[in-house]
Amino acid sequence: VTVGIVGLGLIGGSIGLSLRHARHTVLGFDTLAAHGQTAINRGCADSLASVEEVAQADVVFVSVPPLSVGPMLEALLPVKRPETVVTDCASVKSEVLKWVSEHAPGERRFVGGHPMAGHEKSGPAFASAWMFRNARWILTPAKNTDKDAIKLVEGLVKEMGATPVRIDPQVHDRHVAILSHLPHALAAILVEMGAELERADLVGGSWRDLTRVGGVDPELWSQIAIGNKVELSKVLQQAEGRLRELRVALEQEDDKAVRSFFDSARAAKGKHET
Amino acid sequence: VTVGIVGLGLIGGSIGLSLRHARHTVLGFDTLAAHGQTAINRGCADSLASVEEVAQADVVFVSVPPLSVGPMLEALLPVKRPETVVTDCASVKSEVLKWVSEHAPGERRFVGGHPMAGHEKSGPAFASAWMFRNARWILTPAKNTDKDAIKLVEGLVKEMGATPVRIDPQVHDRHVAILSHLPHALAAILVEMGAELERADLVGGSWRDLTRVGGVDPELWSQIAIGNKVELSKVLQQAEGRLRELRVALEQEDDKAVRSFFDSARAAKGKHET
Repeated sequence: VTVGIVGLGLIGGSIGLSLRHARHTVLGFDTLAAHGQTAINRGCADSLASVEEVAQADVVFVSVPPLSVGPMLEALLPVKRPETVVTDCASVKSEVLKWVSEHAPGERRFVGGHPMAGHEKSGPAFASAWMFRNARWILTPAKNTDKDAIKLVEGLVKEMGATPVRIDPQVHDRHVAILSHLPHALAAILVEMGAELERADLVGGSWRDLTRVGGVDPELWSQIAIGNKVELSKVLQQAEGRLRELRVALEQEDDKAVRSFFDSARAAKGKHET
Repeated sequence: VTVGIVGLGLIGGSIGLSLRHARHTVLGFDTLAAHGQTAINRGCADSLASVEEVAQADVVFVSVPPLSVGPMLEALLPVKRPETVVTDCASVKSEVLKWVSEHAPGERRFVGGHPMAGHEKSGPAFASAWMFRNARWILTPAKNTDKDAIKLVEGLVKEMGATPVRIDPQVHDRHVAILSHLPHALAAILVEMGAELERADLVGGSWRDLTRVGGVDPELWSQIAIGNKVELSKVLQQAEGRLRELRVALEQEDDKAVRSFFDSARAAKGKHET
């Protein structure tokens, strides 16, 4: 099939590489000329095209920062062929689905999506054809979405080596708040606190693991956090509460409560692994 | 030299394996018969011995849980040869140094130590001769510690592939509060929050990295947290504050403050890497 990609960053570039490996034709668009050029040089797209041209493809992946998804859909939906399927890659789904139901209520060929993969570096220079191997790729179709549109996206997702998973947008947003956005916020806090220390060389393996994603693209991640503010705020408050409980237990020399803090985590970890 | 090891767990077992690889003779002791047997089977020690016998070695590594270091030193110091050098491996140093200065004020051959290495699994079954390669090994000698005692420990540390680093015990404790104990607490919180989710399969790379150490041995880690309660409480409060700032910024739709949260982390990460 012919695939359009709007936004040739880390994710869009990786989609292009993966689908070209699978012998599809890929048309790419990016507002940044430098991204477009890097994407072509790295083989992420067969050629660059305008939004109007990209909108004629069989399937268009919109892989732009969260706050740009609405404006991009606004430009794309009116000029696409009626049968063109459009899917996005934003890591927050409720707002995108709300936007589509409000601005394009009759649209039956939009499938909300979120590939659960990424990297601490951004841009097409870091794109990889292996980015989505063994990853989950969330899809959040609406009730009125055409079944064949969903199937088409699912097929391409599988060709990229990922597993498509259909899920409700709100459930998705609560999950990523805990599984992705909170970890990124905690990593950011750690990195910042560590920068105060005079001996930053004294780090061990746990520090390296917990801070890998501590310096991610501020523009992208502030958009992600803002996009998911309802769920993320709840989750941040819950984490604050647990930190406070541990601190108060230590200050009050309540050794049983300290032990119980680590016991709960051990039990939870066991649950994960079975 | 002849090396004694008191406590044949993950760390003690790894010290034994590394130093036997370097052709030293290793005598081991553990209060748990099963640990002793596993250690012998895995080659962590040449033979098992009583505390009194181990105390006759040239250097004794005390690698027991933090709260057991004091009692173990109390048993060991009176029965050792005057020239025997004793070092510990506890990840909190102020309390150990305080204990020695109070209980054995004339002792010039005790060298506080902390190998900055570990693993999320505990016990001698997971011991490795490579555990300390490229790791820092903190040493916190007191003013009256014999220079040749420090040199002897430093020599063995280097033979294990680690880099000895001399540092003040309070500075050490503040560093590990941020670089190790806080990351473990955050990982514990994440693991616990993740266990509530119905779709625990929807995890990505950042979750895996940030929760690797989320289910560590509760007995050991509650002792570590309690042992470092002064520094850890401060650090927990600071992390709570930053989480609250991000939450309030999201709740008040203060997009600039959200952006600034991620900007600070990016700048701090850059500082780390240069």
